[in-house]
Amino acid sequence: MTASHSRLTLNPGRFFDPDPAIRRVAREIYHETSQLPLVCPHGHVDPRLLATNDPFPEPTALILQPDHYILRMLYSRGVGLEQLGVPTRDGSGVERDPRRIWSTFARHYYLLRGTPTRVWLDHELAEVFGVRTRLDADSADAVYDEITEKLASPEFRPRALFDRFRIDALVTTDSAADSLEHHQAIRESGWKGRVLPCFRPDAVFQIAAPGWLEAIAALGDAASTPISDYATFIRVLEDRREFFKTMGATATDHAVVEPYTARLEHDEAAIVFERALAGSATVADQRAFEAHLLMEMARMSVADGLVMQLHAGSFRDHNTPLAERFGPNVGGDIPVTTEYTRNLRPLLNAYGADPRFALIVFTLDESTYSRELAPLAGHYPAVRLGPPWWFHDSIEGMMRFRQRTTETAGIYNTVGFNDDTRAFCSIPARHDLARRVDANYLGGLVARHVIEPSDAREMARALAYELPKEAYRL
Amino acid sequence: MTASHSRLTLNPGRFFDPDPAIRRVAREIYHETSQLPLVCPHGHVDPRLLATNDPFPEPTALILQPDHYILRMLYSRGVGLEQLGVPTRDGSGVERDPRRIWSTFARHYYLLRGTPTRVWLDHELAEVFGVRTRLDADSADAVYDEITEKLASPEFRPRALFDRFRIDALVTTDSAADSLEHHQAIRESGWKGRVLPCFRPDAVFQIAAPGWLEAIAALGDAASTPISDYATFIRVLEDRREFFKTMGATATDHAVVEPYTARLEHDEAAIVFERALAGSATVADQRAFEAHLLMEMARMSVADGLVMQLHAGSFRDHNTPLAERFGPNVGGDIPVTTEYTRNLRPLLNAYGADPRFALIVFTLDESTYSRELAPLAGHYPAVRLGPPWWFHDSIEGMMRFRQRTTETAGIYNTVGFNDDTRAFCSIPARHDLARRVDANYLGGLVARHVIEPSDAREMARALAYELPKEAYRL
Amino acid sequence: MTASHSRLTLNPGRFFDPDPAIRRVAREIYHETSQLPLVCPHGHVDPRLLATNDPFPEPTALILQPDHYILRMLYSRGVGLEQLGVPTRDGSGVERDPRRIWSTFARHYYLLRGTPTRVWLDHELAEVFGVRTRLDADSADAVYDEITEKLASPEFRPRALFDRFRIDALVTTDSAADSLEHHQAIRESGWKGRVLPCFRPDAVFQIAAPGWLEAIAALGDAASTPISDYATFIRVLEDRREFFKTMGATATDHAVVEPYTARLEHDEAAIVFERALAGSATVADQRAFEAHLLMEMARMSVADGLVMQLHAGSFRDHNTPLAERFGPNVGGDIPVTTEYTRNLRPLLNAYGADPRFALIVFTLDESTYSRELAPLAGHYPAVRLGPPWWFHDSIEGMMRFRQRTTETAGIYNTVGFNDDTRAFCSIPARHDLARRVDANYLGGLVARHVIEPSDAREMARALAYELPKEAYRL
Repeated sequence: MTASHSRLTLNPGRFFDPDPAIRRVAREIYHETSQLPLVCPHGHVDPRLLATNDPFPEPTALILQPDHYILRMLYSRGVGLEQLGVPTRDGSGVERDPRRIWSTFARHYYLLRGTPTRVWLDHELAEVFGVRTRLDADSADAVYDEITEKLASPEFRPRALFDRFRIDALVTTDSAADSLEHHQAIRESGWKGRVLPCFRPDAVFQIAAPGWLEAIAALGDAASTPISDYATFIRVLEDRREFFKTMGATATDHAVVEPYTARLEHDEAAIVFERALAGSATVADQRAFEAHLLMEMARMSVADGLVMQLHAGSFRDHNTPLAERFGPNVGGDIPVTTEYTRNLRPLLNAYGADPRFALIVFTLDESTYSRELAPLAGHYPAVRLGPPWWFHDSIEGMMRFRQRTTETAGIYNTVGFNDDTRAFCSIPARHDLARRVDANYLGGLVARHVIEPSDAREMARALAYELPKEAYRL
Repeated sequence: MTASHSRLTLNPGRFFDPDPAIRRVAREIYHETSQLPLVCPHGHVDPRLLATNDPFPEPTALILQPDHYILRMLYSRGVGLEQLGVPTRDGSGVERDPRRIWSTFARHYYLLRGTPTRVWLDHELAEVFGVRTRLDADSADAVYDEITEKLASPEFRPRALFDRFRIDALVTTDSAADSLEHHQAIRESGWKGRVLPCFRPDAVFQIAAPGWLEAIAALGDAASTPISDYATFIRVLEDRREFFKTMGATATDHAVVEPYTARLEHDEAAIVFERALAGSATVADQRAFEAHLLMEMARMSVADGLVMQLHAGSFRDHNTPLAERFGPNVGGDIPVTTEYTRNLRPLLNAYGADPRFALIVFTLDESTYSRELAPLAGHYPAVRLGPPWWFHDSIEGMMRFRQRTTETAGIYNTVGFNDDTRAFCSIPARHDLARRVDANYLGGLVARHVIEPSDAREMARALAYELPKEAYRL
Repeated sequence: MTASHSRLTLNPGRFFDPDPAIRRVAREIYHETSQLPLVCPHGHVDPRLLATNDPFPEPTALILQPDHYILRMLYSRGVGLEQLGVPTRDGSGVERDPRRIWSTFARHYYLLRGTPTRVWLDHELAEVFGVRTRLDADSADAVYDEITEKLASPEFRPRALFDRFRIDALVTTDSAADSLEHHQAIRESGWKGRVLPCFRPDAVFQIAAPGWLEAIAALGDAASTPISDYATFIRVLEDRREFFKTMGATATDHAVVEPYTARLEHDEAAIVFERALAGSATVADQRAFEAHLLMEMARMSVADGLVMQLHAGSFRDHNTPLAERFGPNVGGDIPVTTEYTRNLRPLLNAYGADPRFALIVFTLDESTYSRELAPLAGHYPAVRLGPPWWFHDSIEGMMRFRQRTTETAGIYNTVGFNDDTRAFCSIPARHDLARRVDANYLGGLVARHVIEPSDAREMARALAYELPKEAYRL
């Protein structure tokens, strides 16, 4: 590297309020929590990584291409996904030189100023890969080479990083039909890392979506039980949950646009399911059926003890032409207004006070934090609030979450942090940021004499470690 | 008390920003407003307390059981209301030993860290009862005994506390059929404390609710006028308002889920009312009738000068099984999205510019502060904004309210503080917190040179004392 | 002026956080941006001012009467618009003595404490007019005289102020039928000030509104083309856009209550248009037609390169009796909840990735910042976020905007500042406030080590100058 590159350093007091009274307490709190192992109860890391333990590919495939935060920002300022090497569904016209893609990325890195993506990446570059140069157009090649060299060494194999990151447990997200073969392989490998599946059956719930019949067929195959009626469908879901449990799962996860819950009579459900098998389910059918299946998931959770997660309010693939060209998960999902008070009432009236049941709720609609979610979590025994999700997993977003939920729900109705990431190497950066923001939030409460310093230390430890372990039954 | 208990002290600079420039101004402002008497224009204290002036019962019945903030938080983390001694409607299975309940509470007191409930309670324990020990599992008995002892002395009788708290006026909330016998008894007692009723006729507006016929019968009894048609109903409402006025009332209060207003033709209203008397009013009937009665309440306010309060957006008794077991007001009410711009338009077009009319609006939907409520209050002469309500009556909640409404509506379209409490002994704590938060807000404006220090002092005095007196016509 | 008047001074560090670490950086950043010329890409200054260059009238007509922020606040506390000299539509009963009106204003100036209106006015008085006395009841006459004297001098003619304010470009807002004669006169005058029109065709889109037929007739006259069918209407719109372009326009602007977009088939559009010409268009027709015309505007923008602005969510003339007495724009518009994700989808799916298209979106519903707008702007290449609009163009409002949008959309998907004002002499005050708030926001990021100081300087320059130039293609 030449002297013209500017130096990448991470300030040890970063993200803390500059006020000395707050900063001092925040640093003390963070000093303690930064030593704790990482609990990763919800995320999207591919378990194959840890099953095969193959070396990571070069930097572009590792860092850039799986990160929809980066893809969306560059796309928004006119960089086509083709230029970023995102594969098209028809295989056409995409840049394939990873070094050139990396250079395009570096040239546009300034777009990420002030975003958590930039904060995570700088942390990842500096702390995981030891890079000491700021990424920009000039340093792109040098940084690329430096990371590439590191990736070739055994210390940068996935399992070595897992150990170095001090991950206590890493939970993946897996479809209902998944064989969990990679989880099986990890178990059989003798390696001690704790990598657990999570049961996510969305695809088999969306009866009016294209691909539902295939999803049902795959589920039947996975269960070795052809699914030709509603009763079988329910029994297979119960069986799959049981199978996931035997593989270490402690939770399920459900993504819906609207968190509507309502029980159908058994006959109605059977008729709707039959209509779906005939390929003629309507959008209204799907809405009713998903609402019913959320009730069923809660019922099963009471029975089998799997914690139920609910991620509501994302309008998937908003940019249809882009989704048609590149498929899902390239940054085209946009949040919508989400209603919880009336929608969750049937489910909570049925199961919300059952001590065997736990429901962790996530939102992309921050206006619900103080209006609906904190009041619900501060009342129903079963309800906990998931951490700020996706667009809100950020410095300001996490502060807003705490400022709007703590006064009604306290911190003990929340579940600590989720990194929720596909990007394995960004995990430490994300936990570090969350722990710093929590330390700063608690430091602010101490400096304003809202809580005692001893309370703050206990609360910080709960947020960083104890609450995720307890809430997810890990 | 043994030395192992940790000391309960209230920092004199609590809740102020740690920045020295803000804190200095905030303390100066607070120093002045802390001397002012308390104006309590809206709340739920039982007037019987002050009519009989009987000693308060022991600490659990005084502090814990009437406080739905505490009940909901403990319930949310698995403490059954039975364990907290909340009476069931069928009288079954409830813990009756107040000391044991107090101990359960103390063991879970940590759940309230970072909440206003904790702040209020610590203030109440320290300032009202002189407790010098933090409440926790170890200190529970000692604190219980200390409060019990205090309650036995004449200085802790309700009227003595009323005087010690320097309450300028205390307004209760009373049903339309209430005889106001306790207010009468207070007047006749010769005691000088100002305790005034407020007319809250919700129960007789909800024509589709179970119990409406009983409520109408009670109203007829109170007025010595059987209510067999709509015209009589309206006349009785007018008479009752007049009666409340003679007993000192200056305001009415109305709780609705949706603040929908729309006038029915007289014939329509009469027909709907007839249907209600026949027990066949629908939910749609009730919606239309409530909307009409809000118009009628505004019309009557123009005539009789009673200030109209509107509390919108609480979904009552969300947890049906809990409400069936324990009745209302045990913490199971959850806010919903609330629309004001379109809903209030008919009422405001009819009465919003009448100088005789005053409407104080409250919300549980903070997204309406800057979008709807500040613009409405910053335009219509009749509209004022009530203070942050319920879940939002908190440090962060009050800051959000000022930050989102002042720039559009100023402070002179707001009405100062309401303690809105059932818990008589928590009144000073609540006003103290509000005055501190306002001082801190104004201190921040001074430190950033948005307002002059002399402005800030005048504004602080207005918020703490003058605005509630003026807005409520006290 | 007598010694009893209190002194008006503007603190050089005003609106910056009092924390020394933030304030130091904020002042450095502001020191640089305060030197940059003003870019005014969206506003409501009357171009006649600069065409005739006549002296401004006295202070009341210049400062008070065109400012609906002032009118609404005084009206809200009981000062009738008649007392403020706002002309009634029937010409009746209005105060006509400007000095008396100014005095009424001064007496109520305290109502504006803590609002941006007050901050702007103090800046305008001090910096534009050199007033050194705080405005209040006592100083009213003296301040009035001082401004009046200034207005008589050539240095206070509109063009002289334009130059003194260092305005780089000033864009007006003009109806589709406008002759742009004043813009023409400015061009022909030889004066070098850049005053550009903006095409705002709302009036001809609202087919169910009273006055639509007149608006269409006026449009036909302006284009010398009678508009008797839909195809002609579209062609005239295209022609008028072209004409505006030749007069320097770079943008169009569209105000809608709901940002609904959906294409009608050509036949449907023609039929609806015919119904409108026959005077029988319904509200539903208008909704569908406006949605269609937004699609058409985007299509034309792709072709002619005019940037499309969309201002959504204002319920105009909420106070009907007031609008009937005084007409529009007297402070009676109130925001409503606004949905963007689903409403804009048809338009964005059709044009949102076209590099020729640019859409700048504004909102009065702050809950959409983080939920919908930042995700949309952080994804679609065509979408940029307009600055905080109207009620939210304030210190806290601008901070909320940055805090809720930057982490998802960055700053490069925003367009810098709009002063959006009718009040020509308030332009420097508004830009000054915006630059201070941005400097303070960026100073906070630097002090918390979220960005580097060198990043902050570049970002500040972009926000103050480069982004508006680029986004509006100026």
